[in-house]
Amino acid sequence: MQNFDYMTPTRLVFGENVIEKLPEVMGAIGRRVLLTYGGGSIKKIGLYDRVKELLKDFEITELPGIQPNPKYDPSVLEGVRLCKENDIEVILSVGGGSVLDCSKAIAAGAKYDGDPWDLISYKVKAQAAVPIVDILTLAATGSEYDCGGVISRTETNDKIGYMDPLLFPVCSFLDPRYTFTVSKKQTAAGCADAMNHIIEQYFCEDSTLLNDGFCEAGLKSLMVNTRACLKNPEDYRARAEMMFACTLGCNGIYSLGNSDSGWPCHGIEHALSGYYDITHGEGLAIITPRWMEHILSERTLERFVKYGINVFNIDPSLPKMEIARKAIESTYAFFEEIGIPMHLRQVGIGEERIGEMAHHIAVNEGLENAYVPLTEKDIREILVASL
Amino acid sequence: MQNFDYMTPTRLVFGENVIEKLPEVMGAIGRRVLLTYGGGSIKKIGLYDRVKELLKDFEITELPGIQPNPKYDPSVLEGVRLCKENDIEVILSVGGGSVLDCSKAIAAGAKYDGDPWDLISYKVKAQAAVPIVDILTLAATGSEYDCGGVISRTETNDKIGYMDPLLFPVCSFLDPRYTFTVSKKQTAAGCADAMNHIIEQYFCEDSTLLNDGFCEAGLKSLMVNTRACLKNPEDYRARAEMMFACTLGCNGIYSLGNSDSGWPCHGIEHALSGYYDITHGEGLAIITPRWMEHILSERTLERFVKYGINVFNIDPSLPKMEIARKAIESTYAFFEEIGIPMHLRQVGIGEERIGEMAHHIAVNEGLENAYVPLTEKDIREILVASL
Repeated sequence: MQNFDYMTPTRLVFGENVIEKLPEVMGAIGRRVLLTYGGGSIKKIGLYDRVKELLKDFEITELPGIQPNPKYDPSVLEGVRLCKENDIEVILSVGGGSVLDCSKAIAAGAKYDGDPWDLISYKVKAQAAVPIVDILTLAATGSEYDCGGVISRTETNDKIGYMDPLLFPVCSFLDPRYTFTVSKKQTAAGCADAMNHIIEQYFCEDSTLLNDGFCEAGLKSLMVNTRACLKNPEDYRARAEMMFACTLGCNGIYSLGNSDSGWPCHGIEHALSGYYDITHGEGLAIITPRWMEHILSERTLERFVKYGINVFNIDPSLPKMEIARKAIESTYAFFEEIGIPMHLRQVGIGEERIGEMAHHIAVNEGLENAYVPLTEKDIREILVASL
Repeated sequence: MQNFDYMTPTRLVFGENVIEKLPEVMGAIGRRVLLTYGGGSIKKIGLYDRVKELLKDFEITELPGIQPNPKYDPSVLEGVRLCKENDIEVILSVGGGSVLDCSKAIAAGAKYDGDPWDLISYKVKAQAAVPIVDILTLAATGSEYDCGGVISRTETNDKIGYMDPLLFPVCSFLDPRYTFTVSKKQTAAGCADAMNHIIEQYFCEDSTLLNDGFCEAGLKSLMVNTRACLKNPEDYRARAEMMFACTLGCNGIYSLGNSDSGWPCHGIEHALSGYYDITHGEGLAIITPRWMEHILSERTLERFVKYGINVFNIDPSLPKMEIARKAIESTYAFFEEIGIPMHLRQVGIGEERIGEMAHHIAVNEGLENAYVPLTEKDIREILVASL
């Protein structure tokens, strides 16, 4: 078991009608608010109006239009400018993980005099950040309960994950009803994202019995509840269970004391959405089973066997290699079942830039230190197998 | 799934040699320290000397001699007096859950002008508390990662659990090596305590798939690793896994979104150790299977079936009632296997005060609202069955 140093100070307020507590929570932090959101779905579901009503005594500046795979330019830069100009005291992020990730970059950038990219690229360590509160509308990234974010820079195809304990949200409001209108496509992609977060923590060199059980429970809960959400998008219980399993995805609780796997599927996927702006969860779903096939060996066999038996109820009396292969097939089959396009070509990625992406990943993602080390050749093979 | 409002701001620093970070962590809080500890085991293992050495630049006042089932008089009262007299800025609790529970009561009492019992008995809400740091030497209560404590008042046989978010430790240092010298008796009692914490969260009216899996993983991890600790007390890995499964026991992570069971075994056990000062974990181990037998019915059957199949690998093809009975027998058998005296008479409790205790519990513990409501008659029957 590995040493660890862990803290998650975010308050989680979960359930029906919890945003009624918003004025109280926000009021304790500040009155000058930057309200960040995406493409307008929060207006369709009435959440925008309700937030404005609840915060009628606050001074609100708005930053709308934050895109999936949130962009450094214009969103982060614009948010930083608005914070500085309006002396913003608290950022309220209303939306999914992209809006929140962008808000985290803004929060740090607003308290820094130089180019915010210095912080995101770890050239400079942030000294302070504007406090963040969020209202979540998509079960997926777990950004609401971690201190990280991912930002894309279009001109360089960079999609960089950065983390800083200053960026834990002060409070995350999680009302599962706000996910009732999430499309089947985004529900499935959110599930795949969260499942991959757990898989990245499960497949490692040294894991504990407790963590293995937590991960297996998370994966099973996500599969059962996503199926139910797709069948009936207004199934409160299923939306709630799915939301919370996603929330725990990236904050470490699934793997405290495990060795770090290096998160190889994320490393690879960041290039896919950095180059092609595809949906992150779909990219992960496509990569995951191909990565599994690539790393299956005598050394990793036992992990796959445990995964197959405990997550997919595969018959433990079968030969181990057969259990492992069935486990990988089951992973693929589940993603396909929930409607995810399982080939890169289906999301608009051909072979043209495979070599370039493989090189970019090999240079930037540190996957030579992953659970199973990946060279540029390995990465290219995984990408080709995913076409 | 139930609404919840959750936050655990405690920093966990886990692993070998982590207390080397103690001066840095303490220095950020204050220089005037109240060092609280128990009967001297921390001196035997060299931890006392190491702490004094690490904190040589701090002003240290000591409160030794805190007992198991920590006492309001003298320990809490004495600690409060020392804090006020020495203008203490931070309490450093070195020991197990009893020392830490006592330190929490002191922390709140030190910032209150009246009788600290007002706070413990919820007559008055604490407005502030002295910050707490702890070094844990016993895997059991989970007090290092929650905001609660249990204090006993000898003259009234009261053993009261109190909670206040002000009382989360700022930082808990968890080095599994400090548990190498814990006796077999205390190791087993710690395991039973932590297992019961999980059982109290698992047996409820409404639980999620995720939580069920978390709880089952916690119980299995505790059983496997406690067996290993008893076989080889210096098995670092087993001590580490056991320690961390205990740490998560009471902070809520095993049951976020579940309905509250009312923690019936704890309600009953508090009277046993309130009246007889027995080891808390042993009292819980004795009560748990008798409580299970008492509440097994058609209504609760499915919970027991799930528990039996997933925790004890009982054959799912058996009749449900048989699975449930085997699950209860397996619970009893495990506690007996790890050496816990499984009858109240073996820990010095006869039938003399059973009626008095049952009445005390019925009046004070609110078990009429438990998962399966318990009347005074129910409680008496559980106690009699435990003799």
